[in-house]
Amino acid sequence: MNGSSLAIRQRSLGDPSIEFPLSPPLTRGCPRTSTDEIAYPVEVVYDYARLDKGLFDQAPGPDIGRWSPLLPPLEAPTLGEGGTPLLEFDGIYLKDESQNPTWSHKDRLNRVAISAALTEGAPGVVVASSGNHGASTAAYAARAGLPAIVLASAQSPAGVQAFVRAYGAQVYSVPVDERWPLLREIVDRLGYHPISNQTVTHTGHPYGPEGYKTIAYELFLQLGRVPAAVFAPTGYAELLFGTWKGFTELRLLGLAGATPRMFSCEPAAGGPNARALAEGTPAAIVELGASEAYGIAGSVGGHRGVLAVRDSGGEAVLVTDEEMRAAQRDLARQGVWQELSGAAGLAGYRKLRRDFDGPVVCIGTSSGFKDMGVGEEVFPVRAGLTVADLAP
Amino acid sequence: MNGSSLAIRQRSLGDPSIEFPLSPPLTRGCPRTSTDEIAYPVEVVYDYARLDKGLFDQAPGPDIGRWSPLLPPLEAPTLGEGGTPLLEFDGIYLKDESQNPTWSHKDRLNRVAISAALTEGAPGVVVASSGNHGASTAAYAARAGLPAIVLASAQSPAGVQAFVRAYGAQVYSVPVDERWPLLREIVDRLGYHPISNQTVTHTGHPYGPEGYKTIAYELFLQLGRVPAAVFAPTGYAELLFGTWKGFTELRLLGLAGATPRMFSCEPAAGGPNARALAEGTPAAIVELGASEAYGIAGSVGGHRGVLAVRDSGGEAVLVTDEEMRAAQRDLARQGVWQELSGAAGLAGYRKLRRDFDGPVVCIGTSSGFKDMGVGEEVFPVRAGLTVADLAP
Repeated sequence: MNGSSLAIRQRSLGDPSIEFPLSPPLTRGCPRTSTDEIAYPVEVVYDYARLDKGLFDQAPGPDIGRWSPLLPPLEAPTLGEGGTPLLEFDGIYLKDESQNPTWSHKDRLNRVAISAALTEGAPGVVVASSGNHGASTAAYAARAGLPAIVLASAQSPAGVQAFVRAYGAQVYSVPVDERWPLLREIVDRLGYHPISNQTVTHTGHPYGPEGYKTIAYELFLQLGRVPAAVFAPTGYAELLFGTWKGFTELRLLGLAGATPRMFSCEPAAGGPNARALAEGTPAAIVELGASEAYGIAGSVGGHRGVLAVRDSGGEAVLVTDEEMRAAQRDLARQGVWQELSGAAGLAGYRKLRRDFDGPVVCIGTSSGFKDMGVGEEVFPVRAGLTVADLAP
Repeated sequence: MNGSSLAIRQRSLGDPSIEFPLSPPLTRGCPRTSTDEIAYPVEVVYDYARLDKGLFDQAPGPDIGRWSPLLPPLEAPTLGEGGTPLLEFDGIYLKDESQNPTWSHKDRLNRVAISAALTEGAPGVVVASSGNHGASTAAYAARAGLPAIVLASAQSPAGVQAFVRAYGAQVYSVPVDERWPLLREIVDRLGYHPISNQTVTHTGHPYGPEGYKTIAYELFLQLGRVPAAVFAPTGYAELLFGTWKGFTELRLLGLAGATPRMFSCEPAAGGPNARALAEGTPAAIVELGASEAYGIAGSVGGHRGVLAVRDSGGEAVLVTDEEMRAAQRDLARQGVWQELSGAAGLAGYRKLRRDFDGPVVCIGTSSGFKDMGVGEEVFPVRAGLTVADLAP
C-alpha cells in the first residue's frame, strides 16, 4: 500500500549485538541468550535510513498495511484492523481497541503473525488461547485461507467459546497443562506455524508485537504529538512493548522529540512484570491467584514488558479485580463497554494518581461482550408498567 | 470539526412540497400527510449551495463529525462511530459496520438522534428496542450525560441483555405489545425525547437516518466512485434510506455521475418493504413468522424503504433464515463474524444472482456476539489429545 517492508533482520532482546536473518521467524526466542530459566525474545530490525518519512503525512485509518515499510512483510489480507478512535474522557484519552475486526487489539498482532506463516509457507497455524488471541488468529487464518488449530480453555466464557469457534478453525478445549506440550507437538509434527508462546518465560511470536507499533503511530497523528504516559492492560506485555517500540521509532526518525512513559497494568492476582521489575530480573514467573480478568491474568512473564517499562521510565502497576471493575463501570457509564481486562489501563492510571506533563492515554483493549458472566443472566419481563413505576 | 451544519428545514416524505422548520424534530412523522393507516416520515433539508466541496477531500475515518455540514447539528460527543473498513471478498465488498463503538451501524444514527435530544433540551431519551438500537442509544446518552430509558424485549439473547444494560440506562423488559404505549407515555409525561418509532407505520426519528448518509460518503471515498449496487439488511429501512440519500447528495453536488441501485434484504418471515413495493402502497404491515434474525424481522414497514428501492431502480429481496445462515457462515469462514441479521445483505445479493456493471457492496451491520444461541453452549474439555487425534 505504502511501499514494501524495510524489515531486514531479527535481533536478540537478550543481547542487541546478536542478530539473525529475518527468516525464519525465531518462534522459540533467541537461541544464543536464552537459558533454561529465562527465554529472551527477538525483535525485527528495519533499514530506517531508507524510510520515506512522508509515510507519516497520511491520516490514520483501518488496515495497518498503510504502515507496511515499518512492519514485517504483510502477506496476509487485512480485515480492517487499526485506525481505532481516540476518545477523551475527563481529560484523559482512551484508545478504543474494541473497534477492531474481532473487537480487540489482537488483530494488529495477528495480521503480522499470520503473514509470517504465509511467508514461511506453513501448512497451517496453531495457537493456545482462551479468548481474543485465539479468535483473532482463527479470523486472520480464515481470511488468508490457512488452516488453524486453536487450543482453547474450558474456563472461557461461553460466549467467547462461540466466538473462537465461529471462524471455522479446529478448536479443542484442552486442560491448561496440556496446551503447551500439544502446541509444540503440532508445530514439530505438522509443521504448523506457532502464533503463541513455546518457551519457559514468554517470547511469543517474534514478529507479532510489531503490529502494535501502529498504535503509537496512530496516537502520534491523533494527538499531534506523543503522549506523556501510556497505560496498557498487560499480560505478556506484547502490547506494551510493541507500542513502546513504535514511539522509539518516531523519536529515532526525528518525528517526535520525546517518548512517553509506559505503564504495565497487571492483575494484582499475578503480576509477573511487576515482580521482574521489582527484583531486577529479566522476566519472572509468579503464583497466580483468582482473577476474572482472564485475558491478562497470568503467571508467566517475559522480557518485553521489563524493557518497555524500564527504558521508558515507567512503572508496573498492579490492579485488583475490584479496581478494574470500577474502571470498567465508569467507562460504560460514559458509553464504552470494555472487557474487564480492557479496563486495566484506566484502573492503573487511577491507582497511580500521578500528574503528567502532557496527554495520558489508556489503551482499552477489548469489547465487554467477552467478559465472564455475560449472557448468564436473563431479566424478567415486567407487565403493566406505567411512568409512575419508573425509577427516577 | 469541518464547519457547522447546513441543515435548514424538515420536509415531508409524503409530499416534498411540504416543509417544516428544522426544530422541533417531527418525531411523529409528517402531520400533514399522515393518515390513520399510513404515517409518512420527514427528512432534513440542507442548504447545499453553501457547501464547500473540499469536505470530500478528506480521508474517511472515525467520528462522523467530519461530515457535520451535511448532518443535523451534532451536539452529542462522538464515540468514534464511522470510518469502518470496506473488505473485498470474491469480487464483492463488505462494509463492516461491526467495527463501530457498540459494534453495529446504529451508532451512526444515535450520534445524530441523541444530538437532537440535546439540542431540544430534553431531560432524557427513551427507546424501544430488543438489541443494537437500544444499546447504542444507551451508550450515546451515557456519553452525553443524558438519562436514558430502554424498553427491551425478553426475547433478546442473554448476552444482548447484558449489553443493553451495560451503559447505565434504565432498562425494562416489557411485553412487546406494551412497549409502544409505554414509550408514548414516557414521551408525553416525562418529556423524554423518543429515539424510536411512535406511529402506525414506521417513521422513527426524523434526523436519525441522516447519520447513515455517512456510509455513502465513505463508500464513495473508499471505492473512488459510487458502487453499482448496495445490499442492506432491512428492518425499518432507515439504513437503506439514509445510505441512498447520501448517494443522491453526491450526485446532486456533482461529485458522482450516477447512483447505485439499492436492494432491501428482509427476512422472508416478514418483509413489509417487499409487500409495499409489490402492492404499490407507501408502506405495509405484514404477518410475521418465525425468524432468528431478530434485529430486522418485523411486521411494520415504513415509506423510507419504498422510496430508496423505487427511486434507485433497486428491488426488495426476501431471504430465509437458512440463506442468511449460509451467508453468515461463509463470511465467518473468511474472517468476519456477523450477526445473522448482519449477513442478510450478502444473502440477498446471492439470492438475486444478478450481474452489475460496477462494484457491489453488501453492508454487514453487526457483530456475531449479538446472535441468538451465542453463549448457550459450553464445549467439553478433551484430555490427553495428541496430534494423531486431530481431525485433518
